[in-house]
Amino acid sequence: MNESGRVEAFSDGVYAIAITLLVLEIKVPETEHGESLWHALGAQWPSYAAYVVTFLVIGITWVNHHTIFGYVERVDRVLLFLNLLLLMTVAVMPWPAAMMAEYLRDGDSGRTAAVVYSGVMVLMAAAYTALWWHLTRTGHLFDDRVDTAAARRMRTRFALGSIGYPVTVGLAFVSAPLTLAVHGLLALYYAFNQLPVPEKQPA
Amino acid sequence: MNESGRVEAFSDGVYAIAITLLVLEIKVPETEHGESLWHALGAQWPSYAAYVVTFLVIGITWVNHHTIFGYVERVDRVLLFLNLLLLMTVAVMPWPAAMMAEYLRDGDSGRTAAVVYSGVMVLMAAAYTALWWHLTRTGHLFDDRVDTAAARRMRTRFALGSIGYPVTVGLAFVSAPLTLAVHGLLALYYAFNQLPVPEKQPA
Amino acid sequence: MNESGRVEAFSDGVYAIAITLLVLEIKVPETEHGESLWHALGAQWPSYAAYVVTFLVIGITWVNHHTIFGYVERVDRVLLFLNLLLLMTVAVMPWPAAMMAEYLRDGDSGRTAAVVYSGVMVLMAAAYTALWWHLTRTGHLFDDRVDTAAARRMRTRFALGSIGYPVTVGLAFVSAPLTLAVHGLLALYYAFNQLPVPEKQPA
Amino acid sequence: MNESGRVEAFSDGVYAIAITLLVLEIKVPETEHGESLWHALGAQWPSYAAYVVTFLVIGITWVNHHTIFGYVERVDRVLLFLNLLLLMTVAVMPWPAAMMAEYLRDGDSGRTAAVVYSGVMVLMAAAYTALWWHLTRTGHLFDDRVDTAAARRMRTRFALGSIGYPVTVGLAFVSAPLTLAVHGLLALYYAFNQLPVPEKQPA
Repeated sequence: MNESGRVEAFSDGVYAIAITLLVLEIKVPETEHGESLWHALGAQWPSYAAYVVTFLVIGITWVNHHTIFGYVERVDRVLLFLNLLLLMTVAVMPWPAAMMAEYLRDGDSGRTAAVVYSGVMVLMAAAYTALWWHLTRTGHLFDDRVDTAAARRMRTRFALGSIGYPVTVGLAFVSAPLTLAVHGLLALYYAFNQLPVPEKQPA
Repeated sequence: MNESGRVEAFSDGVYAIAITLLVLEIKVPETEHGESLWHALGAQWPSYAAYVVTFLVIGITWVNHHTIFGYVERVDRVLLFLNLLLLMTVAVMPWPAAMMAEYLRDGDSGRTAAVVYSGVMVLMAAAYTALWWHLTRTGHLFDDRVDTAAARRMRTRFALGSIGYPVTVGLAFVSAPLTLAVHGLLALYYAFNQLPVPEKQPA
Repeated sequence: MNESGRVEAFSDGVYAIAITLLVLEIKVPETEHGESLWHALGAQWPSYAAYVVTFLVIGITWVNHHTIFGYVERVDRVLLFLNLLLLMTVAVMPWPAAMMAEYLRDGDSGRTAAVVYSGVMVLMAAAYTALWWHLTRTGHLFDDRVDTAAARRMRTRFALGSIGYPVTVGLAFVSAPLTLAVHGLLALYYAFNQLPVPEKQPA
Repeated sequence: MNESGRVEAFSDGVYAIAITLLVLEIKVPETEHGESLWHALGAQWPSYAAYVVTFLVIGITWVNHHTIFGYVERVDRVLLFLNLLLLMTVAVMPWPAAMMAEYLRDGDSGRTAAVVYSGVMVLMAAAYTALWWHLTRTGHLFDDRVDTAAARRMRTRFALGSIGYPVTVGLAFVSAPLTLAVHGLLALYYAFNQLPVPEKQPA
């Protein structure tokens, strides 16, 4: 396995664990005073919504992480460090997801939870963008297929590609359920519309 | 590693974590008023049953996931997405398992828990079937060994193969322990009777 | 990756997760009525003992699992199933470990916890022995280096090699701390004294 | 995969799980008596600090573990055992991290938590140093690129390289927040200043 393969394997592990730990925020409901379990299950719908949306978000960002690292052949200390910062924002996601599940229907607290949720996504997108800038700035970490000059020119479009996340921070001050729904839609959008890594054209 | 290998490695991670998180639903029993620990341990037999059955279910579906991906050489965005939906149903299983453990002996609530448990299995089988249909519809994602036409003809038998799961939803309205037992038997059945992926015959 | 490599990767995941989940049984102590944190930390020494011993046990059995699978080239459905049973006993270990931590100093309950702890080890050794018998009985699953006849003759010695575990069940009725200590010593013994898989001798 | 690759894959799993389990110490805050969620979130800043610092520590030590194992070609029983001891100190880190988060602002208890936190780091560095000494003492476990004699001469510098950890134990008796900050700085330092494994010079 080359150097990049080892970083990918470690990153895959963190993504896979973070995505699977999401289930811990879905509680086994307690029924009280003759309440039916169906009713108690229905009452915790924010948990299911937070699970589905955050699962999609982590899953899609894993796909994009892998697409990029498929073009990385060498790693340097800065790349390792930036990747670690990115993983730090991925691994923390079960926490804002659990907070959304807890406070989604709760006016002020719901909006606060949504701001934090969107804020974590912004941090994740920022770490991701920093990683891309480092790759395009150094150039020599890519493998031979990549058109480094074209990749460098794509920096701004790449950064704009994650503009959706800062917008959700604003949205969070309006409505928590709406914010969560938009994150789900963003994940679906990124699932099928990712900027391709530009490859060299045959002369 | 080819593209499919990377998806497999990530999926393996999710399966391995979900199956290992099942242990968190088996509690360290608390003994009160001079109750013996043996008695308290015996009283939580539904936890052991839910652990064993769900461990087998996840383990067997992992085997089948792996068998299929052993024939996949290329991945497209739709396959990645369908696989993510499948993993979403696998990663959530510690939750219905914990609910079965909690309510198995509890009449109405037990049946409700069993319906949810069976419902998750139906979702899992549906995601699995969708993934198979996409593979057989596109054809070019398989490697050269696969007889795509034969694989396509097997679609209905493949879907019928998971007919056991919807049946357990009906059963769940009758008895929760019976439902759990049938899921255990289904897992054993699938362990030794899986539809083979049809390979090309030498002319 | 060959078939056996995929089973190994999945098994490695389960071992790695089970061993890391052990940390969840070490609690952050709560200090009450001006109790010093040092004192509260000292009072939960059974947690540290259970962590260290169970970590060694899982770690050493992982080494032995890997040694054997290093000689396996083909897998059949029975092997997959027996391996799944083995993993089921490995993945459950955080639970008896947590029970030992909770009840180690607690007379009757401590001995009960120790019986369960030792019982899980017996189940693990039994699954492991079943796996070895299947490998030696079929023979063709091994790779070419293995002297299958010699491996078959080693069955009894192999089974005797795990005789230590049933003995600890008896010991558990005497003393829980002693039982835990013996499990630690057994793990150390197996770490440096494993039966080698017999290889063919050059003629 | 060679022998060393299998040990690496297992170790990677443990590192990836331990680093991702850190998120479990960040709680979803409960708001009481009309307290705003913002305020409750702000009050648990020690959780965020402990998460960030410990994430960096585990991440950086993973990088260094991987750098060294990149030069290891053969494994013996002692190496497996020392690596297991190292992993035991890595896998336990979510516990001192959670304790720091709980007691950071709490005078005496905070300093106690900091001593334990630093103590775990000392144990980790000791296991790491033992592993390096075994590798340099035996020599034949390295692959051909390594200048074993030079590696042996580096032992003292290597041990000195982790002198920062014992110093933090002393610091812990002074101030818990300061201790955590220094661990963060140490991690950053090690991220960019690692002793290189000496390679043979072309004659």
